[in-house]
Amino acid sequence: MWAELLPVGRDAATGGYHRFAWTPPELACRAWFLDEARRRGLEVEHDANGNMIAWWLPRDGTRDGAVLTGSHLDSVPGGGAFDGPLGVVSAFAAVDLLRERGIPLRRPIGIGAFAEEEGARFGVACLGSRLLTGAIDPARARALTDGDGRTFAGVLHAAGLDPEAIGPDEDLLGRIGCYVELHVEQGRALQKPVGIASAIVPHGRWRFDFGGEGNHAGTTGLADRRDPMLPFAGMVLAARDAAERNGTVATVGKVRVVPGGVNAIASSVTAWLDARGPADEAVRRTVAEVDEAARLAARPHRVSVDLAEESYTEIVDFNLALRDRVGKALGGVPVLPTGAGHDAGVLSSRLPAAMLFVRNPTGISHAPAEYAEPADCLAGVEALTAVLADLACG
Amino acid sequence: MWAELLPVGRDAATGGYHRFAWTPPELACRAWFLDEARRRGLEVEHDANGNMIAWWLPRDGTRDGAVLTGSHLDSVPGGGAFDGPLGVVSAFAAVDLLRERGIPLRRPIGIGAFAEEEGARFGVACLGSRLLTGAIDPARARALTDGDGRTFAGVLHAAGLDPEAIGPDEDLLGRIGCYVELHVEQGRALQKPVGIASAIVPHGRWRFDFGGEGNHAGTTGLADRRDPMLPFAGMVLAARDAAERNGTVATVGKVRVVPGGVNAIASSVTAWLDARGPADEAVRRTVAEVDEAARLAARPHRVSVDLAEESYTEIVDFNLALRDRVGKALGGVPVLPTGAGHDAGVLSSRLPAAMLFVRNPTGISHAPAEYAEPADCLAGVEALTAVLADLACG
Repeated sequence: MWAELLPVGRDAATGGYHRFAWTPPELACRAWFLDEARRRGLEVEHDANGNMIAWWLPRDGTRDGAVLTGSHLDSVPGGGAFDGPLGVVSAFAAVDLLRERGIPLRRPIGIGAFAEEEGARFGVACLGSRLLTGAIDPARARALTDGDGRTFAGVLHAAGLDPEAIGPDEDLLGRIGCYVELHVEQGRALQKPVGIASAIVPHGRWRFDFGGEGNHAGTTGLADRRDPMLPFAGMVLAARDAAERNGTVATVGKVRVVPGGVNAIASSVTAWLDARGPADEAVRRTVAEVDEAARLAARPHRVSVDLAEESYTEIVDFNLALRDRVGKALGGVPVLPTGAGHDAGVLSSRLPAAMLFVRNPTGISHAPAEYAEPADCLAGVEALTAVLADLACG
Repeated sequence: MWAELLPVGRDAATGGYHRFAWTPPELACRAWFLDEARRRGLEVEHDANGNMIAWWLPRDGTRDGAVLTGSHLDSVPGGGAFDGPLGVVSAFAAVDLLRERGIPLRRPIGIGAFAEEEGARFGVACLGSRLLTGAIDPARARALTDGDGRTFAGVLHAAGLDPEAIGPDEDLLGRIGCYVELHVEQGRALQKPVGIASAIVPHGRWRFDFGGEGNHAGTTGLADRRDPMLPFAGMVLAARDAAERNGTVATVGKVRVVPGGVNAIASSVTAWLDARGPADEAVRRTVAEVDEAARLAARPHRVSVDLAEESYTEIVDFNLALRDRVGKALGGVPVLPTGAGHDAGVLSSRLPAAMLFVRNPTGISHAPAEYAEPADCLAGVEALTAVLADLACG
């Protein structure tokens, strides 16, 4: 199962994955998902928001009080093999184990694959689960554009979905009792094979637009320049300083320079800031300090600065009762917070949600070197199986 | 003539031109050139290096001692309308004026359109004239790649040229007595409609490769990061400081971030430095200081730094005798140096070369706002006509 998915969307040179929502590699992952569901006789529900759920129903046909598990199939640019797919593969494997062991099912188990979790194509992370739970306005979502200027509405339409139908799905939410997502840990905080999430720390994305004046790199004197690259550089360094001061993390990993010629002073630079921290206030203060530093750096160069918040998620404390029950089913494993956003965090606003983490020996994620030991992955499947047995079969 | 060329390769949104060598917009400019030559009965010579010359020959059929004029048709990304095409259009217009005025031709006049002057596609400026004069090794040129990984050899082949035939053309060089290029001025140094170039100051391009480690922007602690974006930002600021200290100009206008995801720490950053100044030593010192600052900034982040010189042109002092003769033909106009590289600078290593500048009222160039007043452009055509009359008809 894992072997079939490994080559999809992998860059031969870097080993990094490029599975952006509704691009051919991600569509191939979706086809793989449908195939795995079909092999197991699971009925697939496609919601209006591009999410898929493969249902295993109890004999009595009950559709309510379901236990949802799963994760996502899309990736960041040049991402790793585990972030997302490990949760989906482990869910299919856990269903197989429950069946092999003949454990009778009392409540439905759904295996979900949520759309555009990384936000790598349309800029808003967890877009599928945000739409499902009503955490994003459908009109705003429809107007989101990808790097080639295509709208989310247009891409949905091309995928055979009705862009006007997207938004919260109370019928589906009402049928789900709880959600348990298994995911590779993305730092080095977990020293055992499997752990449980306590919380997702506050995190968000901000866009800085620096507006200057394009000109010739050879004939324009230093005093005549309005070079937006200079305050942009100041902003990158300010982000690191502000993170150190506030006990947060702040990253500039994406930048767009117009026109981008070697011998041309840029006319504009757009840079994205990712900031996260233990508390809302620390994250807010980090961004405010970076903004102030950017404006200060821009003034002497007569460069304009615009700041836009693209997304922000406040702290998510996972449901305590569900977390305790999962902990009991696993017989005591580490409980830890995470700096990474997940669909489980979005869904937790509407229903009890929990997360299992599988150990990441290097702490590397969102990169080709992302890795989890096979033994730890198997421990993850066993843990998920135990949790599903407790929640859906007890 | 000008009106037909204006819409080619122009971005409707920004007004900037995107005419990279042998891309469809630049091929359209080449077709325009052939058409203008055909309308005037000029015979077009295609050399092995992708350069074109439209010849107006004297009645006696002399092919030696030619006066070459012209410029280039390609542009930087998002460039202006004048940089390059003004020299080619003015050359056709000057030939028209000489003919209208019935001035008898004694030596051939050639109108040249040199290939890849901006180096916007393959990274080496003045590639066509460098190949013609032997200033670049043909094997190195063949291996140059564009942003999509296509080699110069492959693009030449696709354009119907033989990549193995490129290199110096002694037969063609031997037939040219001198070269006079008209060009829009690219700073604000020229206060009269027309001026003459004294020199092209030393200039070059350097590539900095910063190698770090890709990772997750949320779960990787500050101390665990090897983020190449930070020393890159330090290098951008160091370039400005070094330029101020050394009386040079230094610009970072192009950067490539891998993988370029909002929520991923970059694994590598490549940035290009354009540096120019009044003397070789000042430019060399600027680059060395930027390099030192980049390495210093990279060390605490455990990021590697590699520096490569992509091109460098020492100071070009234009031929004094030709400059004086051109000055006399124009009855005294300003003489000024320029910070911009030109084919005339490359050709001056093999034959007497001179440049006429047309006033740039804003000093803006390599940007959509690049402009020259129509009256100044007409003064440029008159000046070029007078110079050609003196050199080719005297």
